[in-house]
Amino acid sequence: MLTRLPRAGHSVSVRVRYYETDAMGVVHHSNYIRWFEVARTDYLRAAGLPYRDLEESGTISPVIGVRCNYLQSARYDDALDIRAWVSAYNGVRLTISYEVTRDGVVLCTGESDHAFLHGGRPVAPKRSLPHVHQVLSACLSRASALASPEINSASPDTQSAPTQAGSGRN
Amino acid sequence: MLTRLPRAGHSVSVRVRYYETDAMGVVHHSNYIRWFEVARTDYLRAAGLPYRDLEESGTISPVIGVRCNYLQSARYDDALDIRAWVSAYNGVRLTISYEVTRDGVVLCTGESDHAFLHGGRPVAPKRSLPHVHQVLSACLSRASALASPEINSASPDTQSAPTQAGSGRN
Amino acid sequence: MLTRLPRAGHSVSVRVRYYETDAMGVVHHSNYIRWFEVARTDYLRAAGLPYRDLEESGTISPVIGVRCNYLQSARYDDALDIRAWVSAYNGVRLTISYEVTRDGVVLCTGESDHAFLHGGRPVAPKRSLPHVHQVLSACLSRASALASPEINSASPDTQSAPTQAGSGRN
Amino acid sequence: MLTRLPRAGHSVSVRVRYYETDAMGVVHHSNYIRWFEVARTDYLRAAGLPYRDLEESGTISPVIGVRCNYLQSARYDDALDIRAWVSAYNGVRLTISYEVTRDGVVLCTGESDHAFLHGGRPVAPKRSLPHVHQVLSACLSRASALASPEINSASPDTQSAPTQAGSGRN
Repeated sequence: MLTRLPRAGHSVSVRVRYYETDAMGVVHHSNYIRWFEVARTDYLRAAGLPYRDLEESGTISPVIGVRCNYLQSARYDDALDIRAWVSAYNGVRLTISYEVTRDGVVLCTGESDHAFLHGGRPVAPKRSLPHVHQVLSACLSRASALASPEINSASPDTQSAPTQAGSGRN
Repeated sequence: MLTRLPRAGHSVSVRVRYYETDAMGVVHHSNYIRWFEVARTDYLRAAGLPYRDLEESGTISPVIGVRCNYLQSARYDDALDIRAWVSAYNGVRLTISYEVTRDGVVLCTGESDHAFLHGGRPVAPKRSLPHVHQVLSACLSRASALASPEINSASPDTQSAPTQAGSGRN
Repeated sequence: MLTRLPRAGHSVSVRVRYYETDAMGVVHHSNYIRWFEVARTDYLRAAGLPYRDLEESGTISPVIGVRCNYLQSARYDDALDIRAWVSAYNGVRLTISYEVTRDGVVLCTGESDHAFLHGGRPVAPKRSLPHVHQVLSACLSRASALASPEINSASPDTQSAPTQAGSGRN
Repeated sequence: MLTRLPRAGHSVSVRVRYYETDAMGVVHHSNYIRWFEVARTDYLRAAGLPYRDLEESGTISPVIGVRCNYLQSARYDDALDIRAWVSAYNGVRLTISYEVTRDGVVLCTGESDHAFLHGGRPVAPKRSLPHVHQVLSACLSRASALASPEINSASPDTQSAPTQAGSGRN
């Protein structure tokens, strides 16, 4: 039974809705992708980058890739925690990693890749969207710092976390 | 076991998708509302009013009301038939009725009410959208004609249909 | 601009998720039906009737009818309040009414009707499910009391509420 | 503009439903995962393995991983083709690859990984589910054969396809 300590990033709580279950009696796998989005937008809002404001300023950030590993299933009414953190950002493309837990047990891990468009055309935040660039760079720094062994060494329980945090899955 | 003969309007076939089921092992009730939309847009496309063209011309037709009665449940992989017909249209507002059947057995009946907006402002098709008005009026005429006793009297099996067709639900 | 004071029943807050919007830029109408379910199950849980426990004891309560009136649209990231209350219950069938508001403005009203099955067979709670019957009766009493003019007359702002509360929709 | 010749596997046609779009005006990325499932179950049904029969015999095949690359967006009412083929199967685990096209242009590629449970316990089809094993092995053989250069060499247009077919994504 895997458990994780709190770490960099941001988490949101969701309670499994009935319509999110399927005839297997568990949550349909597609909903985790949707919860990733809920956690991602909440994370970016908390970091000073509400997606709604982005859109209103003419910038969108489409998902260009998504990956998800399902380890255990969730059921109706389960209280889940969706953690999101910036695991890669090079000034042009962004990768956010996710971990879905129930009572500290990991049910699902995943990642999503994002590009940026402004006025319908691809842009690099580091050149064209300074505020976006600053926020994402800061998110990446904090996530990287907390994932590093030096910081985590305060607690022996997190010895195994860095690799996991660094890759977000596998 | 209720059965219905083919009648006015238009029907589409859908096969129940796994994600449309819920932990009760049957289709979640919200999906019927979504299938109504599938049947409605297919019906209007066949009648010469593709919703995509409407939108591109600046007209939208939001749902302002929906009603649904659930009689029997459907399961994963069931082949369903969704029939839609114009049951009311007064030049301003539109009501479309629906009947979902599996092998001729009615699982669900419903209705949706629609208004029309052009350029973001409410409009009456009879005044401002002549093509829309013409198509919807013709749809209503055909549906009313087929629902009337004179036409249906050719088949004794449909004696009970007019009331049903007139109200769209029990 | 309609506003409502707090009243009988229970409310949950939801923030509009991106996947709940559609190409019109607003929430797809089918999602209100899903939020009704979120509010209903939260309401019944708070009243001592967690739906999960019901199911585990062999009782299910399928939706047999749903009605929804859409007054104003909601957008991505809007914070909404979904209020639910028992508006009818005769010992056999249950009707729950809903009101979706944003900053006190009503966006949508609706109702859902429910039957009860135990071990796959229809049952009347008043005869076969005493705990369910007790909870629903108490919910109905509280909702009816608060909807009555005598109670609401304390505040002139709620003079117009009783009719609305009694019918759940116009 | 990428185009692909028909090849191993199976394809289904879907028309984009309005509720599948989001406020960006395009299909929400989570729906591709759902269409993968539609294509997968249709593929397996055509191959002699209806998922409904599997479930009724006590076998389920949960998704344990999913990956998706989004290349171009789709819009409401677009007619899409979802192709699925077995890209890996070792007697225990199964990987199915997908390609979503519109008029021959690839919009999205992806993969899903599956395990098998019988009576709630993990099983290896090659040992415990002979019919399942036979069907999946045959699917893999056909997909591998068509993806090989010898077969595809008839058409110079497919020179670049084998690698793509072998991996299912870039």
